[in-house]
Amino acid sequence: MKRIADSTVRRLSIYLRFLEEFEGRGLATVSSEELARRGGTTSAQVRKDLSLFGSFGKRGLGYSVPELATVLRDILGLGKEWRVVIIGAGKIGAALAQYRGFRQRGFVVVAAYDTNPDKIGRTLEGIEIRDMTHFEADVEKKRPEIAVLSIPTDDAQQVLDRVSRAGIKAVLNFAPVQLHASGDMTVKTVNMAMELEGLTFALTNNS
Amino acid sequence: MKRIADSTVRRLSIYLRFLEEFEGRGLATVSSEELARRGGTTSAQVRKDLSLFGSFGKRGLGYSVPELATVLRDILGLGKEWRVVIIGAGKIGAALAQYRGFRQRGFVVVAAYDTNPDKIGRTLEGIEIRDMTHFEADVEKKRPEIAVLSIPTDDAQQVLDRVSRAGIKAVLNFAPVQLHASGDMTVKTVNMAMELEGLTFALTNNS
Repeated sequence: MKRIADSTVRRLSIYLRFLEEFEGRGLATVSSEELARRGGTTSAQVRKDLSLFGSFGKRGLGYSVPELATVLRDILGLGKEWRVVIIGAGKIGAALAQYRGFRQRGFVVVAAYDTNPDKIGRTLEGIEIRDMTHFEADVEKKRPEIAVLSIPTDDAQQVLDRVSRAGIKAVLNFAPVQLHASGDMTVKTVNMAMELEGLTFALTNNS
Repeated sequence: MKRIADSTVRRLSIYLRFLEEFEGRGLATVSSEELARRGGTTSAQVRKDLSLFGSFGKRGLGYSVPELATVLRDILGLGKEWRVVIIGAGKIGAALAQYRGFRQRGFVVVAAYDTNPDKIGRTLEGIEIRDMTHFEADVEKKRPEIAVLSIPTDDAQQVLDRVSRAGIKAVLNFAPVQLHASGDMTVKTVNMAMELEGLTFALTNNS
Protein backbone atom coordinates (compact mmCIF):
# COMPACT_ATOMS: atom_id res chain seq x y z
CA MET A 1 0.00 0.00 0.00
CA LYS A 2 1.14 3.48 -0.92
CA ARG A 3 2.28 5.69 1.93
CA ILE A 4 -0.62 7.82 3.16
CA ALA A 5 0.24 11.15 4.80
CA ASP A 6 -0.56 11.65 8.49
CA SER A 7 -2.67 14.67 7.58
CA THR A 8 -4.84 12.47 5.33
CA VAL A 9 -5.37 9.91 8.09
CA ARG A 10 -6.29 12.77 10.42
CA ARG A 11 -8.94 13.97 7.96
CA LEU A 12 -10.36 10.43 7.68
CA SER A 13 -10.78 10.42 11.48
CA ILE A 14 -12.58 13.74 11.26
CA TYR A 15 -14.87 12.61 8.42
CA LEU A 16 -15.72 9.50 10.44
CA ARG A 17 -16.78 11.63 13.40
CA PHE A 18 -19.19 13.64 11.25
CA LEU A 19 -20.53 10.49 9.58
CA GLU A 20 -21.24 8.98 13.00
CA GLU A 21 -23.00 12.17 14.04
CA PHE A 22 -25.09 11.99 10.83
CA GLU A 23 -25.78 8.28 11.52
CA GLY A 24 -27.04 9.26 14.97
CA ARG A 25 -29.39 11.75 13.35
CA GLY A 26 -30.61 9.13 10.87
CA LEU A 27 -29.27 10.79 7.71
CA ALA A 28 -28.87 8.41 4.76
CA THR A 29 -26.52 10.35 2.47
CA VAL A 30 -23.98 13.15 2.64
CA SER A 31 -22.23 15.16 -0.08
CA SER A 32 -18.49 15.75 -0.33
CA GLU A 33 -19.35 19.47 0.02
CA GLU A 34 -21.04 18.90 3.38
CA LEU A 35 -18.14 16.75 4.66
CA ALA A 36 -15.71 19.42 3.45
CA ARG A 37 -17.61 22.25 5.09
CA ARG A 38 -17.76 20.44 8.43
CA GLY A 39 -14.13 19.32 8.23
CA GLY A 40 -12.74 22.72 7.23
CA THR A 41 -11.43 21.53 3.86
CA THR A 42 -12.52 21.46 0.20
CA SER A 43 -14.83 18.98 -1.53
CA ALA A 44 -12.00 18.21 -3.98
CA GLN A 45 -9.83 17.25 -1.00
CA VAL A 46 -12.58 15.01 0.41
CA ARG A 47 -12.98 13.21 -2.94
CA LYS A 48 -9.21 12.87 -3.30
CA ASP A 49 -8.79 11.50 0.24
CA LEU A 50 -11.52 8.90 -0.24
CA SER A 51 -10.40 7.93 -3.75
CA LEU A 52 -7.14 6.65 -2.23
CA PHE A 53 -9.12 3.74 -0.82
CA GLY A 54 -11.59 2.93 -3.58
CA SER A 55 -14.60 4.30 -5.37
CA PHE A 56 -17.36 5.53 -3.10
CA GLY A 57 -20.45 7.65 -3.61
CA LYS A 58 -22.61 8.32 -6.64
CA ARG A 59 -22.41 11.51 -8.67
CA GLY A 60 -25.31 13.75 -7.65
CA LEU A 61 -26.34 11.47 -4.79
CA GLY A 62 -23.34 11.77 -2.51
CA TYR A 63 -22.07 9.12 -0.15
CA SER A 64 -24.15 6.61 1.78
CA VAL A 65 -23.59 7.59 5.43
CA PRO A 66 -23.59 4.08 6.99
CA GLU A 67 -21.57 2.60 4.12
CA LEU A 68 -18.87 5.27 4.20
CA ALA A 69 -18.73 5.14 8.02
CA THR A 70 -18.12 1.38 7.86
CA VAL A 71 -15.45 1.81 5.19
CA LEU A 72 -13.65 4.47 7.22
CA ARG A 73 -13.78 2.39 10.41
CA ASP A 74 -12.20 -0.48 8.45
CA ILE A 75 -9.53 1.77 6.92
CA LEU A 76 -8.69 3.20 10.34
CA GLY A 77 -8.53 -0.27 11.87
CA LEU A 78 -11.41 0.36 14.27
CA GLY A 79 -13.29 -2.90 13.74
CA LYS A 80 -11.55 -4.55 16.70
CA GLU A 81 -10.41 -4.00 20.29
CA TRP A 82 -6.89 -2.67 20.71
CA ARG A 83 -4.87 -3.44 23.83
CA VAL A 84 -3.04 -0.43 25.23
CA VAL A 85 -0.42 -0.20 27.98
CA ILE A 86 0.32 3.06 29.78
CA ILE A 87 3.94 3.57 30.80
CA GLY A 88 4.23 6.27 33.44
CA ALA A 89 1.48 6.49 36.05
CA GLY A 90 1.73 10.23 36.64
CA LYS A 91 -0.96 12.82 35.99
CA ILE A 92 -1.04 12.40 32.21
CA GLY A 93 -1.13 8.60 32.58
CA ALA A 94 -4.02 8.90 35.04
CA ALA A 95 -5.89 11.30 32.76
CA LEU A 96 -5.55 8.85 29.86
CA ALA A 97 -6.54 5.79 31.91
CA GLN A 98 -9.89 7.44 32.65
CA TYR A 99 -10.36 9.04 29.22
CA ARG A 100 -13.87 8.22 28.02
CA GLY A 101 -13.04 8.77 24.36
CA PHE A 102 -10.69 5.75 24.41
CA ARG A 103 -13.24 3.24 25.58
CA GLN A 104 -15.82 4.59 23.12
CA ARG A 105 -13.42 3.66 20.31
CA GLY A 106 -12.47 0.17 21.48
CA PHE A 107 -9.14 1.05 23.10
CA VAL A 108 -8.71 -1.03 26.25
CA VAL A 109 -6.01 -0.18 28.76
CA VAL A 110 -4.68 -3.58 29.89
CA ALA A 111 -1.80 -2.48 32.11
CA ALA A 112 0.01 0.50 33.61
CA TYR A 113 3.68 0.71 34.61
CA ASP A 114 5.91 2.90 36.71
CA THR A 115 9.35 2.73 38.31
CA ASN A 116 8.39 4.73 41.42
CA PRO A 117 7.99 2.41 44.46
CA ASP A 118 5.36 4.80 45.89
CA LYS A 119 3.15 4.18 42.86
CA ILE A 120 3.77 0.48 42.20
CA GLY A 121 0.94 -1.67 43.57
CA ARG A 122 -1.53 1.20 43.66
CA THR A 123 -4.24 1.44 41.01
CA LEU A 124 -4.89 3.80 38.14
CA GLU A 125 -8.60 3.84 37.32
CA GLY A 126 -8.94 0.26 38.47
CA ILE A 127 -5.77 -0.92 36.73
CA GLU A 128 -2.91 -2.12 38.91
CA ILE A 129 0.29 -0.10 38.50
CA ARG A 130 3.00 -2.69 37.86
CA ASP A 131 6.72 -2.43 38.37
CA MET A 132 8.39 -1.66 35.05
CA THR A 133 10.71 -4.63 35.69
CA HIS A 134 7.75 -6.88 34.75
CA PHE A 135 7.17 -5.10 31.45
CA GLU A 136 8.78 -7.55 29.02
CA ALA A 137 7.27 -10.65 30.62
CA ASP A 138 3.82 -9.00 30.71
CA VAL A 139 4.02 -8.03 27.04
CA GLU A 140 4.80 -11.68 26.19
CA LYS A 141 1.59 -12.71 27.93
CA LYS A 142 -0.85 -9.88 27.19
CA ARG A 143 0.38 -8.90 23.73
CA PRO A 144 -0.57 -5.23 23.82
CA GLU A 145 -0.45 -3.52 20.42
CA ILE A 146 -0.05 0.09 21.56
CA ALA A 147 2.08 1.73 24.26
CA VAL A 148 1.39 5.19 25.63
CA LEU A 149 4.49 6.92 27.02
CA SER A 150 3.58 9.44 29.71
CA ILE A 151 7.05 9.72 31.22
CA PRO A 152 9.67 12.46 31.66
CA THR A 153 11.50 13.70 28.56
CA ASP A 154 14.90 12.42 29.70
CA ASP A 155 13.68 8.81 29.96
CA ALA A 156 11.57 8.76 26.79
CA GLN A 157 14.07 7.53 24.18
CA GLN A 158 15.38 4.76 26.41
CA VAL A 159 11.86 3.53 27.22
CA LEU A 160 10.88 3.75 23.55
CA ASP A 161 13.80 1.48 22.66
CA ARG A 162 12.70 -0.97 25.35
CA VAL A 163 9.10 -0.93 24.06
CA SER A 164 10.42 -1.54 20.56
CA ARG A 165 12.55 -4.51 21.67
CA ALA A 166 9.51 -5.99 23.43
CA GLY A 167 7.78 -6.07 20.04
CA ILE A 168 5.21 -3.26 20.34
CA LYS A 169 4.88 -1.47 17.01
CA ALA A 170 2.84 1.63 17.86
CA VAL A 171 3.52 4.33 20.45
CA LEU A 172 1.73 7.47 21.50
CA ASN A 173 4.33 9.72 23.12
CA PHE A 174 3.47 12.57 25.48
CA ALA A 175 7.01 13.62 26.33
CA PRO A 176 7.73 16.94 24.58
CA VAL A 177 10.64 15.52 22.59
CA GLN A 178 11.08 14.03 19.11
CA LEU A 179 11.93 10.33 19.44
CA HIS A 180 13.83 8.14 17.01
CA ALA A 181 12.02 4.92 16.16
CA SER A 182 13.04 1.90 14.15
CA GLY A 183 11.55 1.56 10.67
CA ASP A 184 8.73 -0.84 11.50
CA MET A 185 7.46 1.23 14.43
CA THR A 186 4.98 4.12 14.32
CA VAL A 187 5.40 6.84 16.93
CA LYS A 188 3.01 9.74 17.29
CA THR A 189 4.05 12.56 19.58
CA VAL A 190 1.26 14.57 21.15
CA ASN A 191 2.75 17.93 21.91
CA MET A 192 0.42 20.12 23.91
CA ALA A 193 2.57 23.19 23.32
CA MET A 194 2.21 22.65 19.57
CA GLU A 195 -1.55 22.59 19.96
CA LEU A 196 -1.35 25.92 21.76
CA GLU A 197 0.84 27.29 18.96
CA GLY A 198 -2.05 26.74 16.56
CA LEU A 199 -3.99 29.11 18.81
CA THR A 200 -1.28 31.74 19.23
CA PHE A 201 -0.85 31.75 15.46
CA ALA A 202 -4.55 32.55 15.10
CA LEU A 203 -4.44 35.17 17.87
CA THR A 204 -1.43 36.82 16.27
CA ASN A 205 -2.56 36.75 12.64
CA ASN A 206 -6.38 37.09 12.71
CA SER A 207 -6.59 40.48 14.34
CA MET B 1 -3.98 38.00 5.67
CA LYS B 2 -4.94 34.96 3.62
CA ARG B 3 -6.35 32.02 5.54
CA ILE B 4 -3.58 29.54 6.39
CA ALA B 5 -4.57 25.88 6.83
CA ASP B 6 -4.20 24.28 10.26
CA SER B 7 -1.96 21.63 8.72
CA THR B 8 0.41 24.36 7.49
CA VAL B 9 0.60 25.94 10.95
CA ARG B 10 1.30 22.51 12.39
CA ARG B 11 4.21 22.05 10.00
CA LEU B 12 5.61 25.47 10.95
CA SER B 13 5.60 24.33 14.60
CA ILE B 14 7.46 21.19 13.60
CA TYR B 15 10.04 23.08 11.51
CA LEU B 16 10.62 25.42 14.45
CA ARG B 17 11.37 22.48 16.73
CA PHE B 18 14.03 21.15 14.35
CA LEU B 19 15.50 24.62 13.87
CA GLU B 20 15.80 25.02 17.64
CA GLU B 21 17.47 21.63 17.87
CA PHE B 22 19.92 22.74 15.12
CA GLU B 23 20.47 26.05 16.97
CA GLY B 24 21.34 24.07 20.08
CA ARG B 25 23.92 22.13 18.05
CA GLY B 26 25.36 25.34 16.63
CA LEU B 27 24.42 24.72 12.99
CA ALA B 28 24.31 27.90 10.87
CA THR B 29 22.25 26.79 7.85
CA VAL B 30 19.74 24.11 6.90
CA SER B 31 18.35 23.05 3.52
CA SER B 32 14.66 22.64 2.68
CA GLU B 33 15.53 18.97 1.98
CA GLU B 34 16.81 18.47 5.53
CA LEU B 35 13.77 20.19 7.06
CA ALA B 36 11.53 18.06 4.84
CA ARG B 37 13.27 14.83 5.76
CA ARG B 38 13.02 15.54 9.48
CA GLY B 39 9.43 16.74 9.22
CA GLY B 40 8.21 13.84 7.08
CA THR B 41 7.25 16.01 4.11
CA THR B 42 8.74 17.16 0.78
CA SER B 43 11.20 20.00 0.15
CA ALA B 44 8.66 21.54 -2.26
CA GLN B 45 6.15 21.60 0.61
CA VAL B 46 8.69 23.25 2.94
CA ARG B 47 9.45 25.96 0.36
CA LYS B 48 5.73 26.48 -0.32
CA ASP B 49 4.91 26.73 3.41
CA LEU B 50 7.63 29.30 4.04
CA SER B 51 6.90 31.31 0.87
CA LEU B 52 3.47 32.14 2.35
CA PHE B 53 5.24 34.45 4.79
CA GLY B 54 8.00 36.00 2.69
CA SER B 55 11.21 35.17 0.93
CA PHE B 56 13.74 33.24 3.00
CA GLY B 57 16.89 31.33 2.23
CA LYS B 58 19.37 31.55 -0.61
CA ARG B 59 19.45 29.13 -3.51
CA GLY B 60 22.22 26.62 -2.91
CA LEU B 61 22.91 27.90 0.60
CA GLY B 62 19.68 26.99 2.36
CA TYR B 63 18.10 28.84 5.25
CA SER B 64 19.91 30.61 8.06
CA VAL B 65 18.97 28.58 11.15
CA PRO B 66 18.76 31.45 13.69
CA GLU B 67 17.03 33.78 11.20
CA LEU B 68 14.39 31.26 10.17
CA ALA B 69 13.82 30.24 13.80
CA THR B 70 13.18 33.88 14.72
CA VAL B 71 10.83 34.35 11.77
CA LEU B 72 8.85 31.22 12.69
CA ARG B 73 8.59 32.23 16.35
CA ASP B 74 7.21 35.59 15.20
CA ILE B 75 4.75 33.99 12.78
CA LEU B 76 3.55 31.61 15.48
CA GLY B 77 3.17 34.45 17.98
CA LEU B 78 5.77 33.05 20.36
CA GLY B 79 7.65 36.28 21.08
CA LYS B 80 5.56 36.99 24.19
CA GLU B 81 4.04 35.39 27.28
CA TRP B 82 0.50 34.08 26.88
CA ARG B 83 -1.86 33.89 29.85
CA VAL B 84 -3.79 30.63 30.05
CA VAL B 85 -6.70 29.63 32.28
CA ILE B 86 -7.60 26.01 32.91
CA ILE B 87 -11.30 25.27 33.31
CA GLY B 88 -11.86 21.91 34.97
CA ALA B 89 -9.43 20.84 37.67
CA GLY B 90 -9.67 17.10 37.06
CA LYS B 91 -6.90 14.78 35.95
CA ILE B 92 -6.40 16.34 32.52
CA GLY B 93 -6.40 19.83 34.04
CA ALA B 94 -3.82 18.74 36.60
CA ALA B 95 -1.65 17.13 33.93
CA LEU B 96 -1.70 20.34 31.90
CA ALA B 97 -0.99 22.60 34.88
CA GLN B 98 2.29 20.75 35.46
CA TYR B 99 3.16 20.28 31.77
CA ARG B 100 6.78 21.36 31.29
CA GLY B 101 6.38 21.95 27.56
CA PHE B 102 3.98 24.84 28.27
CA ARG B 103 6.35 26.83 30.42
CA GLN B 104 9.22 26.24 27.96
CA ARG B 105 7.14 28.03 25.33
CA GLY B 106 6.00 31.02 27.37
CA PHE B 107 2.53 29.76 28.27
CA VAL B 108 1.71 30.78 31.83
CA VAL B 109 -1.25 29.27 33.64
CA VAL B 110 -2.75 32.19 35.60
CA ALA B 111 -5.84 30.53 37.04
CA ALA B 112 -7.77 27.27 37.35
CA TYR B 113 -11.52 26.83 37.82
CA ASP B 114 -13.95 24.16 38.88
CA THR B 115 -17.56 23.90 40.06
CA ASN B 116 -16.93 21.04 42.50
CA PRO B 117 -16.91 22.32 46.12
CA ASP B 118 -14.44 19.54 47.05
CA LYS B 119 -11.91 21.02 44.63
CA ILE B 120 -12.49 24.74 45.05
CA GLY B 121 -9.88 26.33 47.33
CA ARG B 122 -7.37 23.52 46.83
CA THR B 123 -4.39 24.03 44.55
CA LEU B 124 -3.38 22.64 41.18
CA GLU B 125 0.42 22.76 40.83
CA GLY B 126 0.56 25.82 43.05
CA ILE B 127 -2.41 27.55 41.39
CA GLU B 128 -5.52 28.08 43.51
CA ILE B 129 -8.61 26.37 42.13
CA ARG B 130 -11.26 29.07 42.00
CA ASP B 131 -15.03 28.75 41.99
CA MET B 132 -16.29 29.06 38.42
CA THR B 133 -18.70 31.76 39.65
CA HIS B 134 -15.68 34.13 39.79
CA PHE B 135 -14.70 33.41 36.18
CA GLU B 136 -16.08 36.51 34.45
CA ALA B 137 -14.80 38.96 37.09
CA ASP B 138 -11.36 37.29 37.07
CA VAL B 139 -11.13 37.48 33.27
CA GLU B 140 -11.86 41.23 33.48
CA LYS B 141 -8.90 41.61 35.81
CA LYS B 142 -6.33 39.09 34.55
CA ARG B 143 -7.15 39.25 30.81
CA PRO B 144 -6.15 35.69 29.89
CA GLU B 145 -5.87 35.09 26.15
CA ILE B 146 -6.34 31.33 26.08
CA ALA B 147 -8.73 28.98 27.90
CA VAL B 148 -8.17 25.25 28.21
CA LEU B 149 -11.37 23.24 28.66
CA SER B 150 -10.75 20.01 30.54
CA ILE B 151 -14.36 19.35 31.48
CA PRO B 152 -16.98 16.67 30.77
CA THR B 153 -18.43 16.47 27.26
CA ASP B 154 -21.95 17.41 28.35
CA ASP B 155 -20.81 20.75 29.81
CA ALA B 156 -18.36 21.71 27.09
CA GLN B 157 -20.56 23.73 24.70
CA GLN B 158 -22.15 25.73 27.51
CA VAL B 159 -18.77 26.56 29.05
CA LEU B 160 -17.36 27.45 25.62
CA ASP B 161 -20.20 29.96 25.13
CA ARG B 162 -19.45 31.44 28.53
CA VAL B 163 -15.73 31.72 27.73
CA SER B 164 -16.65 33.41 24.44
CA ARG B 165 -18.94 35.94 26.15
CA ALA B 166 -16.14 36.75 28.62
CA GLY B 167 -14.04 37.82 25.62
CA ILE B 168 -11.48 34.99 25.35
CA LYS B 169 -10.75 34.29 21.68
CA ALA B 170 -8.77 31.04 21.78
CA VAL B 171 -9.71 27.70 23.34
CA LEU B 172 -7.99 24.35 23.58
CA ASN B 173 -10.73 21.76 24.12
CA PHE B 174 -10.10 18.30 25.59
CA ALA B 175 -13.71 17.12 25.68
CA PRO B 176 -14.17 14.51 22.93
CA VAL B 177 -16.86 16.54 21.14
CA GLN B 178 -16.93 19.01 18.26
CA LEU B 179 -17.86 22.45 19.61
CA HIS B 180 -19.51 25.32 17.76
CA ALA B 181 -17.66 28.60 18.15
CA SER B 182 -18.49 32.14 17.06
CA GLY B 183 -16.62 33.49 14.03
CA ASP B 184 -13.94 35.44 15.86
CA MET B 185 -12.98 32.56 18.14
CA THR B 186 -10.47 29.79 17.44
CA VAL B 187 -11.14 26.42 19.03
CA LYS B 188 -8.76 23.48 18.76
CA THR B 189 -10.01 20.13 19.96
CA VAL B 190 -7.38 17.68 21.14
CA ASN B 191 -8.88 14.27 20.65
CA MET B 192 -6.74 11.53 22.15
CA ALA B 193 -8.76 8.82 20.42
CA MET B 194 -8.00 10.47 17.07
CA GLU B 195 -4.30 10.36 17.87
CA LEU B 196 -4.64 6.64 18.54
CA GLU B 197 -6.48 6.21 15.23
CA GLY B 198 -3.34 7.41 13.47
CA LEU B 199 -1.62 4.44 15.10
CA THR B 200 -4.31 1.85 14.39
CA PHE B 201 -4.31 3.00 10.76
CA ALA B 202 -0.58 2.29 10.61
CA LEU B 203 -0.93 -1.05 12.43
CA THR B 204 -3.72 -2.10 10.06
CA ASN B 205 -2.17 -0.94 6.79
CA ASN B 206 1.59 -1.34 7.18
CA SER B 207 1.71 -5.06 7.75
